[in-house]
Amino acid sequence: MTPENLSKQLAFIKEIDKLKYIQRRTKLFNSDRCENSAEHSWHLALMAIVLTEHANEKVDVLKVIKMVLIHDVVEIDAGDTFIYDTQKSHDNTDEERLAAQRIFGLLPEETAQELIAIWEEFEAGETAEAKFARAMDRLEPLLQNSSNNGGTWHEPGVTYDKVFSKKSVIKDGAADLWTYGESLINEGVQKGFLKKNTTD
Amino acid sequence: MTPENLSKQLAFIKEIDKLKYIQRRTKLFNSDRCENSAEHSWHLALMAIVLTEHANEKVDVLKVIKMVLIHDVVEIDAGDTFIYDTQKSHDNTDEERLAAQRIFGLLPEETAQELIAIWEEFEAGETAEAKFARAMDRLEPLLQNSSNNGGTWHEPGVTYDKVFSKKSVIKDGAADLWTYGESLINEGVQKGFLKKNTTD
Repeated sequence: MTPENLSKQLAFIKEIDKLKYIQRRTKLFNSDRCENSAEHSWHLALMAIVLTEHANEKVDVLKVIKMVLIHDVVEIDAGDTFIYDTQKSHDNTDEERLAAQRIFGLLPEETAQELIAIWEEFEAGETAEAKFARAMDRLEPLLQNSSNNGGTWHEPGVTYDKVFSKKSVIKDGAADLWTYGESLINEGVQKGFLKKNTTD
Repeated sequence: MTPENLSKQLAFIKEIDKLKYIQRRTKLFNSDRCENSAEHSWHLALMAIVLTEHANEKVDVLKVIKMVLIHDVVEIDAGDTFIYDTQKSHDNTDEERLAAQRIFGLLPEETAQELIAIWEEFEAGETAEAKFARAMDRLEPLLQNSSNNGGTWHEPGVTYDKVFSKKSVIKDGAADLWTYGESLINEGVQKGFLKKNTTD
């Protein structure tokens, strides 16, 4: 008979396989193939490893990696919300909280509580680790859009102001990565991929 | 102008995006969709996090996670080799070493050396971390095949003895996960998904 803890761990391992089916709006680099949330999470983890020196504050890299690896797991129940969606809030909805309880709740109690707390910390975005993890999450699609002639910047309702506002979160985690990110956004405007709002 | 370190880090971040196109032989859980090496690596990292208590020896979890996140990056140049391939060695070929030098070599020197050393350590499979990381790498497709009525066990030349031999590496990293793994292999034999070799 499989020991109880292992049974629970295996149930979680099987469940999270579903994240490989969740399609994001953003495309891979120089590509028209949508990225899925599992491979996106892998990419963020490696970005966190190689970009650590840019964090504004000293961070616990293991915690940052855990955050980015699990930050989208709730999408298995709640789906991926486009960051520029005007109908639905992107962050920490009740649906996502319920999903976190259900999915991490498959694990043995202690691990479940640890991962729920890490997910909540990422969502709150207040600690050094959460700020840096969120910077990774905002930077990757910015790099991808920039490689794809604007990518999702061409979708209805996406403007320079919205992109600038959403992406400036990078500054809170890694100011010099934001300097670079800002230059990519401005380049997008210059190339006509992104429209500045007009007031008249 | 982008600082030199950041330019190198960004070159690496863009390059590894290609791992999302590398198709493995093994299918997702209860699925006929092939897994790609990026989402596979993500899955192993989360397995390492939730299964740590099963490691035979105390392990540095951060190092294990780094190992599994990068272990397949060399496939960008060298391709994925099917574990039961009889023509080509699965492990640490010259082609893979050159790939490691080229791809991790895109990074600033210090990070490049760190990741090459971690990749080499994984390939050598001698430290507690490498043994546990390799156990994750062998366990995931075993779970997937078991969920897929045998999956790649039905491919030509795959026998009970080969599966048993390749998978018993799990024991070196996590003996109680091997007890479970062995039960899945035996179940595969009982269900007719896997043939025992005959000597006559």
